[in-house]
Amino acid sequence: MAAAAEILCIGTELLLGNITNGNARWIAEQLASLGIPHQRQLVLGDNRERLIAEFRAAPERCRVLITTGGLGPTPDDLTTEALAAAFDTPLVENQQVWADIQAKLSARGRSCSPSNRRQALIPQGAQVLPNPTGTAPGVIWTPRPDFTVLTFPGVPSEMRAMWLATAAPWLREAGLASGVFASRMLQFWGVSESALAEQMADLLQQSNPTVAPYAGAGEVKLRITARAKTSEGAEQLLQPVEAEIRSRTGVCCFGCDGDSLASVVLEQLRQRGETLAVAESCTGGGLGAALAAVPGASDVFLGGVIAYANSVKQGLLGVPSALLEVHGAVSDPVAQAMAEGVRRATGADWALAITGVAGPGGGSAEKPVGLVHLAVAGPAGCSSEGVRFSPSRGRDWIQTLSAGEALNRLRLQLA
Amino acid sequence: MAAAAEILCIGTELLLGNITNGNARWIAEQLASLGIPHQRQLVLGDNRERLIAEFRAAPERCRVLITTGGLGPTPDDLTTEALAAAFDTPLVENQQVWADIQAKLSARGRSCSPSNRRQALIPQGAQVLPNPTGTAPGVIWTPRPDFTVLTFPGVPSEMRAMWLATAAPWLREAGLASGVFASRMLQFWGVSESALAEQMADLLQQSNPTVAPYAGAGEVKLRITARAKTSEGAEQLLQPVEAEIRSRTGVCCFGCDGDSLASVVLEQLRQRGETLAVAESCTGGGLGAALAAVPGASDVFLGGVIAYANSVKQGLLGVPSALLEVHGAVSDPVAQAMAEGVRRATGADWALAITGVAGPGGGSAEKPVGLVHLAVAGPAGCSSEGVRFSPSRGRDWIQTLSAGEALNRLRLQLA
Repeated sequence: MAAAAEILCIGTELLLGNITNGNARWIAEQLASLGIPHQRQLVLGDNRERLIAEFRAAPERCRVLITTGGLGPTPDDLTTEALAAAFDTPLVENQQVWADIQAKLSARGRSCSPSNRRQALIPQGAQVLPNPTGTAPGVIWTPRPDFTVLTFPGVPSEMRAMWLATAAPWLREAGLASGVFASRMLQFWGVSESALAEQMADLLQQSNPTVAPYAGAGEVKLRITARAKTSEGAEQLLQPVEAEIRSRTGVCCFGCDGDSLASVVLEQLRQRGETLAVAESCTGGGLGAALAAVPGASDVFLGGVIAYANSVKQGLLGVPSALLEVHGAVSDPVAQAMAEGVRRATGADWALAITGVAGPGGGSAEKPVGLVHLAVAGPAGCSSEGVRFSPSRGRDWIQTLSAGEALNRLRLQLA
Repeated sequence: MAAAAEILCIGTELLLGNITNGNARWIAEQLASLGIPHQRQLVLGDNRERLIAEFRAAPERCRVLITTGGLGPTPDDLTTEALAAAFDTPLVENQQVWADIQAKLSARGRSCSPSNRRQALIPQGAQVLPNPTGTAPGVIWTPRPDFTVLTFPGVPSEMRAMWLATAAPWLREAGLASGVFASRMLQFWGVSESALAEQMADLLQQSNPTVAPYAGAGEVKLRITARAKTSEGAEQLLQPVEAEIRSRTGVCCFGCDGDSLASVVLEQLRQRGETLAVAESCTGGGLGAALAAVPGASDVFLGGVIAYANSVKQGLLGVPSALLEVHGAVSDPVAQAMAEGVRRATGADWALAITGVAGPGGGSAEKPVGLVHLAVAGPAGCSSEGVRFSPSRGRDWIQTLSAGEALNRLRLQLA
């Protein structure tokens, strides 16, 4: 029997190692959560003959082929053309797609070129897989009985939006899954993936619900997936496992599914009717950006000061120069003065401050790369602590972990 | 003719989307730098029959097959066993490998289990590919004329060490490279991928050097890749094409390879001995974070103010409340007052300000989601402009494009 699904990622940039194939992983996760097994992921370059050969061979192996890439306007975007050729089907211009492309380009103040018009061609008989955000739509096409291909652009944000809006509902209806699935992604901060896996060793062995760990940038996740005949049945299987995990992990579990540390902290403060400001040195705005990434942050997040230079720490936050001279910028007294300073300057109820050595330069024996001091100031006072992140993962990693750690400290104080 | 190389990554965790396939990207980059073309990357799960089928088919398609994963001691580690079975060859215990495994486990204070002894089995006639850091060695094996397989563990650090120590020298000697490659990635802002591709239509058709376009978040890229007998020869082929592209695109081309808009602007200012501050509303710190992402930013970037709330615009930046009332926060007068205010407050030579509607809420007919006002203040005065980004790509995208657009405006003023 043919397998349910396969993933084919198309792009010479993948073969050249220019980019990591994050799309394959994301789609694999989605398929797993839909309960649709897949056995094979393939990467091919922008080569017409090899694509045609692969498309022709696919129906023997799988019922659904999911492709990414090769839908753009340039001559090396060959997916749609090769697909039509593989199944001896003409390409026809879809008027609605062409009108949509023109409208999108004109909204961006750009003129339409002949190459954009190519993007409106789809194989005769194919259904359009709408792209709400970009110009290139995909198709859902069944060129052979029991074989459907779904095409997506390679741009991850467009692919994901199209998947969630159209492909996932289609796949759910397609009867490829062996049952109905319910899943929940629990999110953790302050515990390593391996420690969490050991704590959950018995649950990781279970087959229904399954529990699988994922590591992110600082946060760790556990996905619980339950299968049953009905979604109520799946949810009933899921709940006791979720409760068990939450009870074993306590405050380490900060949320689930679409939550982020920033969204959780904003919601905690919203419930209290309180506001937040930030003072950032080594993160340079990354903590503020994490808060501003959450839609509707403005009723809680007031803003703050990026105090990258010491002169800004003094001028805008009122950090005394004596503190900087005696303790250095990366110290508890300066972190506390920054937090108190920004709380005073903005009138916020709460303030977070970060000062550290993100590297790769600027470290010393006493204050090595990865040393970060974090302060939380609130109505009842101010506290701070020095944390050492491993320098081995680089500047970005230290900046991301610092912002997350600061948010987590406030979360625990507000809990 | 068979292609030079293929990559086969083995592991059910890849199919489940538990981990990203970073090994494929790393090996692809290594192959490209060795000048060895490859046309195909495949991922399969830990399944004996599918692995055997793939190993049997490989010699028809490629001269070298590189595998990762499936070399560990557990029952689902099947690579070596499937490989021997595919070519009807017995597995034999390699005494030196077994001694090495015992020594390594004993050095870690662990005892040897029968499953560890499985790792000492290799196909008869295969050469060991030593693993300096882990217990699982790989093999270099030529089971058919003109077909060699190299196996690596899935652990990235072990795979990389084995590649660099043994596989890369072997591949260099194997005569698979079709010359030496040189490549350059040129980066653009303010031009769409399709417009750039049309402007370069003739160059995109060339075969040596090749020119290929890539789209990022706002920035667009062109990769030039030249092949020659020597690296000097490749560089000589590359240079005139790079010069031609730069002359056609003018100021749209902001840099190459590892450059970012932020790194280019920081370097422009560094050359002038001048400093920069930011005032951010709707980006909430994202512009500052982009600048702070560049190592060594601190000699130019002083910091600034995240003026998310109007009260912070007034309090820390001195934006007059009358301006906010008459023009609204998203307007040229307020953007300019923010830029001038942060320039004054920090003493920076230059300042960038961003105020806009990132959405999804907060838009109106007059000031829709995606409208952003950007200001640049410098020694000679202040200017600003309203820009409309498409709301269809969402909040993150509007924030990222706003930060890039602000940096690009300063870049053009400094050019």
